[in-house]
Amino acid sequence: MKPFEHGGNVYSAGVHNPEVVDFSANINPLGLSDSIKKSILDNMESLVHYPDPTGTLLKQAISVHYGVDTKRIILGNGAVELMYIYFHCRSPKKVLIPVPSFSEYERAAMAAKCHIERLYMDKEQSFTLDRSLLMERLSKVDAVVLGNPNNPTGELIGRDDLEAIISEAAKYNTDVLVDESFLDFLSSDKDYAVMELVERYSNLFVLRSMTKFFAIPGLRLGFGVANNELIDKMEPGRDPWNVNLLAQMAGVAALKDKTYQMDSRQIISGCIEYLYRALSSIEGLKVYRPSVNFILASVENTGMTSSKFVKAMGDRGILVRDCCNYPGMDNYHVRFAVRLMEENEKLIETIKLVLVERLKR
Amino acid sequence: MKPFEHGGNVYSAGVHNPEVVDFSANINPLGLSDSIKKSILDNMESLVHYPDPTGTLLKQAISVHYGVDTKRIILGNGAVELMYIYFHCRSPKKVLIPVPSFSEYERAAMAAKCHIERLYMDKEQSFTLDRSLLMERLSKVDAVVLGNPNNPTGELIGRDDLEAIISEAAKYNTDVLVDESFLDFLSSDKDYAVMELVERYSNLFVLRSMTKFFAIPGLRLGFGVANNELIDKMEPGRDPWNVNLLAQMAGVAALKDKTYQMDSRQIISGCIEYLYRALSSIEGLKVYRPSVNFILASVENTGMTSSKFVKAMGDRGILVRDCCNYPGMDNYHVRFAVRLMEENEKLIETIKLVLVERLKR
Repeated sequence: MKPFEHGGNVYSAGVHNPEVVDFSANINPLGLSDSIKKSILDNMESLVHYPDPTGTLLKQAISVHYGVDTKRIILGNGAVELMYIYFHCRSPKKVLIPVPSFSEYERAAMAAKCHIERLYMDKEQSFTLDRSLLMERLSKVDAVVLGNPNNPTGELIGRDDLEAIISEAAKYNTDVLVDESFLDFLSSDKDYAVMELVERYSNLFVLRSMTKFFAIPGLRLGFGVANNELIDKMEPGRDPWNVNLLAQMAGVAALKDKTYQMDSRQIISGCIEYLYRALSSIEGLKVYRPSVNFILASVENTGMTSSKFVKAMGDRGILVRDCCNYPGMDNYHVRFAVRLMEENEKLIETIKLVLVERLKR
Repeated sequence: MKPFEHGGNVYSAGVHNPEVVDFSANINPLGLSDSIKKSILDNMESLVHYPDPTGTLLKQAISVHYGVDTKRIILGNGAVELMYIYFHCRSPKKVLIPVPSFSEYERAAMAAKCHIERLYMDKEQSFTLDRSLLMERLSKVDAVVLGNPNNPTGELIGRDDLEAIISEAAKYNTDVLVDESFLDFLSSDKDYAVMELVERYSNLFVLRSMTKFFAIPGLRLGFGVANNELIDKMEPGRDPWNVNLLAQMAGVAALKDKTYQMDSRQIISGCIEYLYRALSSIEGLKVYRPSVNFILASVENTGMTSSKFVKAMGDRGILVRDCCNYPGMDNYHVRFAVRLMEENEKLIETIKLVLVERLKR
């Protein structure tokens, strides 16, 4: 297992330097909402009490917002914690993971002593998931993990395609974990979200992060959706106080704050469009079409490796995610989070500068 | 498994009623320190960043405060989370648990599919742990869990006794988990704490909660201490962002705040003394000698069950922990947290009132 390495690790990069702009973590660039700040201040004195072990208020808010029964919800100290609980609970022997994808899938499965099988997505096919290849392998494994959209490639799988996969997997009692942690960034997720399908498919577990869209990765909050039976089996695997009190209350406040949600989607979609075009116009960069708030690109044709490129950007105060430690990835890909316009412009300028500088050496 | 039931569940009891006094959760009655409040306010804007996955600052603060090498520390989202990680990592087949004790020991072990063996402590012996009986069983199990002091009985095991147990267990490769979550309340823990012994005993894991003494159960914070090898094995079982950013920074601030620590110990020790005497003077109550900030008592001689007593107290705005759902406990024991003087006096008055009222029916 490679040493721990993710985007957003501002600690090794100097968190206290306000001039550093973090394009390495895919967090809503609008930042902490006033409603969440107010919630934290209002609930600070309540920290002398344990968090509600049943998470009743937050589950009700999630139920209203996403249209899912509270009995089908399990709350997590971030979505990642729920992966660990899920694999410990289900104990699948073989877990199939299309790669490149979020490395915590493998780490969580390995913590539960699962054997990992990788399905390598082809760089020549822009890392597109080969549906038929996936279908063929479903009968030979106990679980499969799909990021939708996939991180770092940004590929979205349509709801119908996903249902076909889930339905085929069900024939072999193969579990399907669908990670929808970035779907909140879409203006509408109805063609992609599969939460509703848990009613019909007992082999389905859907994960949602609330830290990315609501910009609270430091506070930790996520949830999972499955049919009642699976939730009832997973619950005893959860430390009863796993979701801290401020996170529960911030979640309730955030889900009610429709203005922040609408503003975020509107502003970010414009920024995605801008950044995609601007990046695409830079000679030597191969840019993948984004679906949400991050963009994958290859610097191979610039003659630089991703590590050299990321180092050069970092020296100029811009943190970018080097993708070389993603399983199944080469040494040339980088990921840019989408931020606000002025910051995106600074990103573009800095990339141009770095590419000009490289020719001078 | 009995349904989830712990002290401090103010949600089912009306958290927003300021007239309710919570004697059911063993939390430092001095409440949130100013240093922690300041830390939360100072770090709120940083919630848009992930927590430090290595917890470097907090580990350094723990290392300085407790005199333990940072390499021997693992951080937890509360001490309870670390029990789950520990049992998943070690996968002991048979876990021996002296009871009555904190019910999360069993729950965490069962989540890792361990078989539980109980060592029933004798009510006639005031639930004192029978050392020789324990010693005899060490060769027949894979792990044993000891609360020191034990919750809810308050029994403290001396360091020498504990080392004898750990050393005997080591002969059979039996793991020993020592939960020291309440030791911070002692003016000195040197005759009881066994953190230092991890250097010599690879079968030892020591747990510490930071939520009780620093009054932040809502924020979640704990840590474990073991030799480097065991820590290295446990680390991959931890979600890398398990300890939220505010908890990490609150921990750093709390450990530096020597005034709060000294004030707490001094004030609480006086309150323990008062409450123990006052409870002992009430006819019909059998009161167990406390070691830290909670006191076990039996209401058997009052003719009431613990449930009736707790209900009657609750009706008068005082939450008390009914101990009847502790494994190995009878239907007559209750646990009182030690609070500040005025509150303790109100507790005593209310108990007297409840006992007088019972005779009138």
